[in-house]
Amino acid sequence: MSRTERISAIRRYLAAHRADAYLISSPANVLYLSGFTNNDCFLVLTQTANYFVGDSRYTLQAEQEVGGTYSVIALKNSLEQTLQRLAARKRWARICFEPRRISVYAYRRLSSGLGKAIRLLAGEDVLAPLRMQKTAVELACIRRAQEITRKSVEQLRQSIAPAMTELAVKHRLEQLLYDHGAEKTAFDVIIAAGEHAAMPHAVAGQRKIGRKEPVVVDVGSVWQGYNSDLTRTLFFGTMAQHNKYYRLVAAAQERAIENIRPDVPIADIDRAARQVFKKAGLERYFSHAVGHGVGLEIHEPPSVSSTNKARIKPGMVFTVEPGLYIPGWGGVRIEDLITVTERGCEIL
Amino acid sequence: MSRTERISAIRRYLAAHRADAYLISSPANVLYLSGFTNNDCFLVLTQTANYFVGDSRYTLQAEQEVGGTYSVIALKNSLEQTLQRLAARKRWARICFEPRRISVYAYRRLSSGLGKAIRLLAGEDVLAPLRMQKTAVELACIRRAQEITRKSVEQLRQSIAPAMTELAVKHRLEQLLYDHGAEKTAFDVIIAAGEHAAMPHAVAGQRKIGRKEPVVVDVGSVWQGYNSDLTRTLFFGTMAQHNKYYRLVAAAQERAIENIRPDVPIADIDRAARQVFKKAGLERYFSHAVGHGVGLEIHEPPSVSSTNKARIKPGMVFTVEPGLYIPGWGGVRIEDLITVTERGCEIL
Repeated sequence: MSRTERISAIRRYLAAHRADAYLISSPANVLYLSGFTNNDCFLVLTQTANYFVGDSRYTLQAEQEVGGTYSVIALKNSLEQTLQRLAARKRWARICFEPRRISVYAYRRLSSGLGKAIRLLAGEDVLAPLRMQKTAVELACIRRAQEITRKSVEQLRQSIAPAMTELAVKHRLEQLLYDHGAEKTAFDVIIAAGEHAAMPHAVAGQRKIGRKEPVVVDVGSVWQGYNSDLTRTLFFGTMAQHNKYYRLVAAAQERAIENIRPDVPIADIDRAARQVFKKAGLERYFSHAVGHGVGLEIHEPPSVSSTNKARIKPGMVFTVEPGLYIPGWGGVRIEDLITVTERGCEIL
Repeated sequence: MSRTERISAIRRYLAAHRADAYLISSPANVLYLSGFTNNDCFLVLTQTANYFVGDSRYTLQAEQEVGGTYSVIALKNSLEQTLQRLAARKRWARICFEPRRISVYAYRRLSSGLGKAIRLLAGEDVLAPLRMQKTAVELACIRRAQEITRKSVEQLRQSIAPAMTELAVKHRLEQLLYDHGAEKTAFDVIIAAGEHAAMPHAVAGQRKIGRKEPVVVDVGSVWQGYNSDLTRTLFFGTMAQHNKYYRLVAAAQERAIENIRPDVPIADIDRAARQVFKKAGLERYFSHAVGHGVGLEIHEPPSVSSTNKARIKPGMVFTVEPGLYIPGWGGVRIEDLITVTERGCEIL
C-alpha cells in the first residue's frame, strides 16, 4: 500500500460521495498520506491535486519533505480563510472533513468561514481499515520500535534496586530507550510501585520501590513515526500472593495469544483472557479491554474488547495486555505486541 | 483564586444561562478545577454537586485525589450513557459543554445518546480569563519549572561539542532536566542545528552540529502540572553574520520586554519586536507571533500577536520569543518567560 494508493482510496471516496475535496487534519493521517512528521498541518486532497497546508513555520520543511506530491500552501490568517480562498478558486461545493479530529468550535468557524455556497460533510475514516493492516515497511518500523523497547526493559531489570523512586526508574529507562535509538517515547512512561500498581494509568512519582512489591513498567518507543508498547511487572523478593496473581495474568495472556489468527472474532481474544480471571473469581479486578491497535498512533483500531464485532485480519498489530488491579495491594500487567500472520500470530 | 472560587465561577455561568450542568472535558480545566492529574476524565459541575467521571482505570486514583470535593462516578460503557443516566436521575434539561474540546464525532454521539429531552449548549470558556491571571501558588510552580529548565540549558552549554548529533544533545538535555527535578518535558524538545534552525518547529534528528553554525535549543519542563518554556541559540566559533542576526533578535526581545506592563495592548508587544526587524529589512524572516501564554498548557491564552485586541493584566505569564529564520542558512530564536507585575514585568 504505497502513498499513491492511499491517496487513491481517498479519491474513490470523494467520487462515491460526489465531494470535491477531503480535508485531512489528523496528524497520523497526514503522516500516513504524506510522510510529513509534524503536527498542526493539514492536507486537502482532490481528484486532480494534493495540497499541503501549514503555517509559515512549516512551509520550508514541507517543501523539502512533501513538495514532490503536494502543492505547499502557507496558512494565511486561519484555516477557514485559506480553505475558502482555495475553494473559491477551484469552485468546490462539497468538502469532507474528519469528524473525530475537528472540534465543535473549529467546525463552526470552518462552516461560517466557508459560507453557504460550500457544504461540509462528515467523512468516513477511509484510512482506518488500510491503516489496520500494516505493510511490510510499517511492520519493520514497529518491530524496530518494539525491539528498542524490549532491550531497554531487559537492561532496566539489571539496573534498578529497591529504594529507587518511580521517577528515577522512569528516567533511567528513558535513557536506555534513547541509547538504543528511540526517537521519543510513545507515551509518558508508567512506573508504578506497590499499591500504585493497582492504578492502570498511574503517574510515576517520588514513591520509593519497596523490597516486597510489584513494579509495573509500561513503556513504548517511537521509530520512524511508528509506536511500540510493552509492559512488564517486576518483583524484588518472592511472595506467594504476588506469584499467584502474576501466574494468572501470564496464563490469561497465553490463552488470549493462542486464539489469535485470521477470521477469529476480535471479541474472542478479550473473552479468552477474561475467562481465566473468571474461573479464579477475580474478573472484577480486570477493568479494561485486553488490547488496542498500535501503529502511527499508540492507541488506534482495532480495540481488542468484548464489544468489537470485527474479525481479525492478517497484518493487524495490537497489544495483548491483561492485568489484575487489587486496590491497596497493587497490580500486575503483562503486555506484548503481536502481529497477525496468515495462519496465526507472531509476538514482536 | 481557590478551587472553590473556580467552581463558583462555573456555577455563576450556569445560573446566568439557566443551565443545569457543565461538562468539563479539557484536561487542563479538569486539573484546574480538581487537581486531578490524568487525561481522559471529565467533570460535571452543577449548582449543588460536583461529579468526577472516569473509567475504572482511574476511579481508585480519583477517590484518593479528589474524593473530598467530587463524587467519583465510574464511566460505564460510554460518556453519553453515563451522562444520560445521571441527567435522568437529576432531571437535567440543559447541559453546557466545551466546544473547543469536544470533536464533532463526540458531539454527535453525546447529542443522540442524551436524547431530545436534553439540550447541549456550547458554553463559553469561563475559566480562560481566570487561568490567564496566575495566583501566587501557580506562579511558584511555573517559576520552579522555568528554574529547572534554565539550569539545565546552562549546564548543557558546557557539555555539548561539535559533531554531536541533535538527538544526542536532546537526550543529554532531557537527562539534565530530570536531574533537576522535572516531572516531564513540556513538549518534544527542539534541537535544531545549522539550516535546520531555519525551521521554527524542527524535529531533532541525526544531523551533526557543525563548528560554525547556530543551534536553536527550545525546551520546557513541567512541575506540578505547570509548564515552562525557554529558547537559547548557541554558537560554536565566531561569525560576524551570525552575530548580526543574534544581536537583532536580542534587541527585538529587549524592545518587546521593555513595553510590558498592565493596560498596554498585547498587540503592541508583538509590534515592538517586529519593528526592530522591519528597520533592518528582515521582517519577512520573523514568521510567527512573538509569544504565547504558558500555564497548565504549554500554549494557552493570551496569544501575544498583532491581532490580539486585549490588554495586558497583572499575573499574566507569557513567552517573548522573537526569531529570524533564514532558509538555507539557519535561524536564531531567543525566548524567555515573563510574568506581568503591578508596574511592569519580571523575567522568570
